[in-house]
Amino acid sequence: MCIHGNLMKEPKGCQPRDRQMCGIKQSGLKLRFCTNESQKSRDKFVGLLRRLGFDISVNEITSPAPAARQILKERGLRPYLLVHDDVRSEFEGMDTSDPNCVVIGDAGDGFSYQSMNEAFRVLINLENPVLLSLGKGRYYKETDGLMLDVGPYMRALEYACDIHAEVVGKPAPEFFRAALKEMGTEAHETLMIGDDIVGDVGGARCCGMRALQVRTGKFRCDLSPSTSADCSPCILCASFPCTPINQML
Amino acid sequence: MCIHGNLMKEPKGCQPRDRQMCGIKQSGLKLRFCTNESQKSRDKFVGLLRRLGFDISVNEITSPAPAARQILKERGLRPYLLVHDDVRSEFEGMDTSDPNCVVIGDAGDGFSYQSMNEAFRVLINLENPVLLSLGKGRYYKETDGLMLDVGPYMRALEYACDIHAEVVGKPAPEFFRAALKEMGTEAHETLMIGDDIVGDVGGARCCGMRALQVRTGKFRCDLSPSTSADCSPCILCASFPCTPINQML
Repeated sequence: MCIHGNLMKEPKGCQPRDRQMCGIKQSGLKLRFCTNESQKSRDKFVGLLRRLGFDISVNEITSPAPAARQILKERGLRPYLLVHDDVRSEFEGMDTSDPNCVVIGDAGDGFSYQSMNEAFRVLINLENPVLLSLGKGRYYKETDGLMLDVGPYMRALEYACDIHAEVVGKPAPEFFRAALKEMGTEAHETLMIGDDIVGDVGGARCCGMRALQVRTGKFRCDLSPSTSADCSPCILCASFPCTPINQML
Repeated sequence: MCIHGNLMKEPKGCQPRDRQMCGIKQSGLKLRFCTNESQKSRDKFVGLLRRLGFDISVNEITSPAPAARQILKERGLRPYLLVHDDVRSEFEGMDTSDPNCVVIGDAGDGFSYQSMNEAFRVLINLENPVLLSLGKGRYYKETDGLMLDVGPYMRALEYACDIHAEVVGKPAPEFFRAALKEMGTEAHETLMIGDDIVGDVGGARCCGMRALQVRTGKFRCDLSPSTSADCSPCILCASFPCTPINQML
């Protein structure tokens, strides 16, 4: 389940959502939260969710920062971190001197011309530039309107350096497969619930999962249902909680 | 002739360059300066060039801001201007209230997360979003290193809104055709001199012009000569002034 599209919107009145979430857990169905959140560490993010009234723990969450850390470790990479200050703790202890790659996340106000230039200069001077992107979302919805996500800034660096980023997060198939592995379920018996037609629905469908799209969060009528069969949801619902989930319980 | 790649680099010792430039004018050959400069108005830009020792006037320059202004006027568009403060005077007197398009230029430090979000929100709320980009350069060279140009930020907004920008400036064919018209020359009898393999050489070649690439400015060995025949220069020179030009005089 995508956290932002289902749980984070209109935080007042969380009980019905938490109740259905607990209903899923109590029914014996396995539940995992997949998020491209890259403005907060998992600790901070879970703290926020718990304060909102949701019964969630860190080990129920699949998010891109730990996956990126693992990749950096495996390949011996030293990152220039173009990420939000609140997510830096996920990379604590890593060698960031003389960087030989860039990790980009949803840096928010941290996307200054100066920081983008610094990341660009790291990449353009590398023989084999590596750009790891914590998601490729176009935008998300905050209380005061739509906000640019990491995707547009990833594209900016890709264009500047004529490279392709490696996306760590939704809709990367590896991300969904990691979540399936963590749950111990097969793709065909798993349902993704999310608001993003590309990140949630498309990513899950590409992995052979079914997908339920909610009309909350960043859902926009003109962008859904998608014209591409790969991205069309199996079920379309007004919001979470919803009747199709109750019927499964 | 491209100004940045030929004249603006290493401003000390401008005499040889100004001398060959004046030689071209005195020989009866027509000379026009094509620039994607979008950090300064033409007035300010010419003032800078004259202080550096070059004999240039505003009416010898083809640049994207006046071309964009003309497009806005013809289509009755009200722009959100994501441009450098020093180029705003080119749009003086235009109606910028309730914008129904975005004009993006090399805003430099003006490329904040906030200004990018404002431009994005204008575009995403339009039924037919129009994004005019004053060039699509990837980067340029300043005394303290390479700097991101307008192109990466144009790509960011294109991706965020799933649209294509209209490029006003090099390498757009309309831009080169406007310069040819202003000179009163045919493409096949015109030579473009520049440092940018895509913006200068590629753009000119696509219009049927010949092109001389200089190894100054942002020239990089690993990017030139291009693998694409469309972008390969007819002549490659160390710098401007150069022997092939002297041979033409």
